[in-house]
Amino acid sequence: MKIRIINPDYGVGEEAMAQRCSILQQFVGPDVELSMVCLTQTKVEINSAADVVLAGPEILELAKQAEQDGCDAVVLYCFSDPAAEACRERLRIPVVGGAQASVLQAPLVARQSGVILSDPARIGEKELFLPTLGIGPGRIKAIGAIHFQGKSIWDNREEAFAQLVEEGKRLIREQGVQCLILGCLSFLGLARPLSEKLGVPVIDPAIAAVCTAESLVRQGI
Amino acid sequence: MKIRIINPDYGVGEEAMAQRCSILQQFVGPDVELSMVCLTQTKVEINSAADVVLAGPEILELAKQAEQDGCDAVVLYCFSDPAAEACRERLRIPVVGGAQASVLQAPLVARQSGVILSDPARIGEKELFLPTLGIGPGRIKAIGAIHFQGKSIWDNREEAFAQLVEEGKRLIREQGVQCLILGCLSFLGLARPLSEKLGVPVIDPAIAAVCTAESLVRQGI
Repeated sequence: MKIRIINPDYGVGEEAMAQRCSILQQFVGPDVELSMVCLTQTKVEINSAADVVLAGPEILELAKQAEQDGCDAVVLYCFSDPAAEACRERLRIPVVGGAQASVLQAPLVARQSGVILSDPARIGEKELFLPTLGIGPGRIKAIGAIHFQGKSIWDNREEAFAQLVEEGKRLIREQGVQCLILGCLSFLGLARPLSEKLGVPVIDPAIAAVCTAESLVRQGI
Repeated sequence: MKIRIINPDYGVGEEAMAQRCSILQQFVGPDVELSMVCLTQTKVEINSAADVVLAGPEILELAKQAEQDGCDAVVLYCFSDPAAEACRERLRIPVVGGAQASVLQAPLVARQSGVILSDPARIGEKELFLPTLGIGPGRIKAIGAIHFQGKSIWDNREEAFAQLVEEGKRLIREQGVQCLILGCLSFLGLARPLSEKLGVPVIDPAIAAVCTAESLVRQGI
């Protein structure tokens, strides 16, 4: 089974993409082949609603290319699920975004969940966006954030993790959530240690999206 | 990985349970070991809200036993997800019901879905029940049914399939749904031929529940 991961950020290096695939490979079956591509024409990173719009056409093109290349599913490697519905209109294979895959799993493990973003400035946007993904009202109880705007989560792992621990504790204590969802695909790999530290399930949207895509293909839906 | 499937109907035969497991085995990884148990004390089949209540205590006990036996997840083999939340309160491993697993997958493959039950008398119950599972309003556009009350779906496969084709066509034509969810675990195995016949994704709740349980375990959530 071939799953193509579309990273909607411009110019991500080959090495960085291989590293993401190698981490994700641990969570899928041995017959699943992951590949990642990124934007090469549209010079944006997805940090705003405008970026989502600008990146849309190239994402659609990359998704169509994945289907032509014989891929069985496409994963949109972003917590904004850019152009997800548009890709579904154009493709016959499943298209799975990081945000939708993770919020739709949350009710299976908890009554109410909390989301942690990497930038507090985007909380309002996500409060309006997440309910459009098919999750029922009240299931996402609260959205918090760490302070990593403009700073690389990959280059500052320990600091990011320390902030996630504090924000996770706050959401559990003040909002009573029983599950946390990481609200940025750059948090890849931090869910498991965070879950061990805080004692609640933590959903990693990158892993959730890839596992969900694999599952949809196996089910033939 | 060991997944215990709890069939909440009384006295299902060993052969019938092995047959279900053998069909489901095709959709999971080679390292997944499926086993099924059924009610042996509480003499009900799940055909009403009262049955769900009566079966609850023994299901809780069987779920607890599964965890003690070293299982990694529990699947509730029913479209009423009997005692699902109660099992989650008592267990540390994931507990997945057929209805919740399938309705939470539907928004990943379609904007609006239709459900087909085996008995029209239960449409009202499911109209009230499904929205409690964490799916957003409007995602389940319509609930229909074939006429199989009191009749075995397993012993009348061709007739059941023919009725599913007709009811599926009706939901697609009259309600505009782009995906169908089979609303009874005894429809196991009919989703794929139905999807091929009607040209829309068809979600089998038995397969969805087992695949979802496997996915949650692999993700560690």
